[in-house]
Amino acid sequence: MPTELQINGRGYRRPDRHAVVICLDGCEPAYLDAALAAGVMPALAGMLAAGGSRHLARSAMPSFTNPNNLSIACGVPSAVHGICGNFFLNPDTGQAVMMNGVEFLRAPTVFAAFQQAGARVAVVTAKDKLRALMGAGLDCSRGGAVCFSAERADQATRAVNGIGDAALWLGQPVPPVYSGDLSLFVLQAGVKLLAEHRPDILYLSTSDYIQHKHAPGADEANAFMAGVDAALAGLLAQDIRLVLTADHGMKPKHRADGSPNVIYLAPVLEAALGAGQARVILPITDPYVAHHGALGSFATVYLAPGADAAAAAATLAAIPGIDTVLSRAEACARFDLPPDRIGDLVVTCSADWALGTREEEHDLSGLDAPLRSHGGLDEQVVPFLASFPIAPPQDGLRNFDAWQVATSAGD
Amino acid sequence: MPTELQINGRGYRRPDRHAVVICLDGCEPAYLDAALAAGVMPALAGMLAAGGSRHLARSAMPSFTNPNNLSIACGVPSAVHGICGNFFLNPDTGQAVMMNGVEFLRAPTVFAAFQQAGARVAVVTAKDKLRALMGAGLDCSRGGAVCFSAERADQATRAVNGIGDAALWLGQPVPPVYSGDLSLFVLQAGVKLLAEHRPDILYLSTSDYIQHKHAPGADEANAFMAGVDAALAGLLAQDIRLVLTADHGMKPKHRADGSPNVIYLAPVLEAALGAGQARVILPITDPYVAHHGALGSFATVYLAPGADAAAAAATLAAIPGIDTVLSRAEACARFDLPPDRIGDLVVTCSADWALGTREEEHDLSGLDAPLRSHGGLDEQVVPFLASFPIAPPQDGLRNFDAWQVATSAGD
Repeated sequence: MPTELQINGRGYRRPDRHAVVICLDGCEPAYLDAALAAGVMPALAGMLAAGGSRHLARSAMPSFTNPNNLSIACGVPSAVHGICGNFFLNPDTGQAVMMNGVEFLRAPTVFAAFQQAGARVAVVTAKDKLRALMGAGLDCSRGGAVCFSAERADQATRAVNGIGDAALWLGQPVPPVYSGDLSLFVLQAGVKLLAEHRPDILYLSTSDYIQHKHAPGADEANAFMAGVDAALAGLLAQDIRLVLTADHGMKPKHRADGSPNVIYLAPVLEAALGAGQARVILPITDPYVAHHGALGSFATVYLAPGADAAAAAATLAAIPGIDTVLSRAEACARFDLPPDRIGDLVVTCSADWALGTREEEHDLSGLDAPLRSHGGLDEQVVPFLASFPIAPPQDGLRNFDAWQVATSAGD
Repeated sequence: MPTELQINGRGYRRPDRHAVVICLDGCEPAYLDAALAAGVMPALAGMLAAGGSRHLARSAMPSFTNPNNLSIACGVPSAVHGICGNFFLNPDTGQAVMMNGVEFLRAPTVFAAFQQAGARVAVVTAKDKLRALMGAGLDCSRGGAVCFSAERADQATRAVNGIGDAALWLGQPVPPVYSGDLSLFVLQAGVKLLAEHRPDILYLSTSDYIQHKHAPGADEANAFMAGVDAALAGLLAQDIRLVLTADHGMKPKHRADGSPNVIYLAPVLEAALGAGQARVILPITDPYVAHHGALGSFATVYLAPGADAAAAAATLAAIPGIDTVLSRAEACARFDLPPDRIGDLVVTCSADWALGTREEEHDLSGLDAPLRSHGGLDEQVVPFLASFPIAPPQDGLRNFDAWQVATSAGD
């Protein structure tokens, strides 16, 4: 491959060592702080002691999984790649449309561009929904690329995923989709892929099942981080450049009695504007809602033609817990969002709150622990660690700088 | 002065331009984000566009005003300088002791060390309680140093403060202690001091009155930030190296009805251990509690000899909202605290919660807006901006790197 690659307007170098980026889903910085303090991450501590670096970065907004995995994969925010949640409203049809398909992606990924330039690429995700997006433009049928999910590792085929049954290959059964083991499977697969497939670039993206249920420093959280560390040891032993970041943080969003602390937006808007004047879209909504009940801290509101946007905004802004109400133009400018996939208003709430549509529209029966979730500004700060010294850009690190940092560093 | 100074184990260079550090009290990063997005900070936007830098940093813990102003002033955390709150418990007497006096400070400040090396120094604080600590070791009687507070600007004397009536000098009356204008007075005094006194190093420390009452992006908050920006314009016009950071962030800590969202620790500990076994110290407590009612997100607990520390810790850790319970040794290791001024346990709570002793011990009559406060891990992330490119240290920026960054940068 050429020494320099331009991808979505950014320059990437051919890595002279295997470049590995881990997106640790929902890794609020405190999970690492607590686990390091408890001594359960010796490999990470060793990496930091041996010249590694440890910074904070801001995620893309909304602080959800898909927008951020795509931002990391493309090196640019949602305004460029188009994926700003799991759903948007098609203004022509009035239908809420899922944007989990590759047809909604507007930019090439670093993975596809590196493959086209002759590099070997490997991508492992926890859930399969993300695997499809991460694999956009990647041809896994020719031997140079591997892309599969832990969730469907046993269904992987050489033609589609660049590898046969990956559960058999790893010697581990496919873990339950709602488990921390799903993430550890991803990382352990990364260790083995690195050894056997020798990718120039390797992306490992986990799930935030543990973080949705357990606070930083909790025994379960530290046990999970210890599992992460064991995989890090296996990766770091292989002469790599590692960048470890997260798609978003994670905050408790429940009351003292354990019930979710939710602001339901639809009744408020109906009282302010009348019935049928506003439609609330929660872009966190997806087929895997058991651990958060589709409750996050970011919402977008589509208004009927002629509805009083200023009145709606003022009503929302006056609600305790709501910290930002912006017009589409303001939100797109501030958060780098694609205007055609955002409603007339964008609403975020602060750390301990979540946003809902109507109480009866949220199935909270799967919530077996007090709600922890993300999506807002208070979950935008994420860790950004590297196995080597880095010089953060002067406008501040973003998690989607990960591939540029991982591939551009020289030594 | 010599080219290199060693202060508390860190190296500082003689600045070749006036080095200015602003500690914007309670400046959660979102205040700047919202004000920049609203276009009310043109001077700051211009600084960033002209090669300035914008990072995130972690404050010292607890995320309170005095520990962080002292950490910035000394370039080291509380473990070294000793000030970890406004109060600690003297274990010999059982008395809660205020540590606002200079006799509790265990390290020289950058200000005193620079003055001793022949540099000109100026320090302006909002409240006078902080002026005394910031002025420790500084001799203002000889013409080379100025140190006064906005609160008592009109009582400044040349012998004590290095300047006569500073309100008269600035041409402004002393603003009320509970006002945003108190902070703007500090910054405007900085502009004039820079022009007339030509300090080599200038420290400006504001108050968080506005941030305790108004959320980021609120009209009042943006109006305050516009006032900050006007002073920045006056500073930046004078060929300075500017570092702008904060002592701590600020989070809403109230319920939907506006009442404070408080975990009262004393009754919980009494139920778990029996009466008289635990004493809760809230280090945020000080003589100016009207805007927060002594409610923050950090507490330390002193236990009676023989009390069951493990049981107390387990009881506290099980309370929703409490996110960290550490032993003294764990807390000192993780947060760089001085062991002799910390209780047997350290407790923090998450963003939307505050910690109290007993309901009847908190005077909330001065709270005329829903509680916003700080002290915990969720208020540890602060902005760190500079008027020049910077290379953050590989273990991550701390707000108390401010003076090293401001004085060490070359160009």
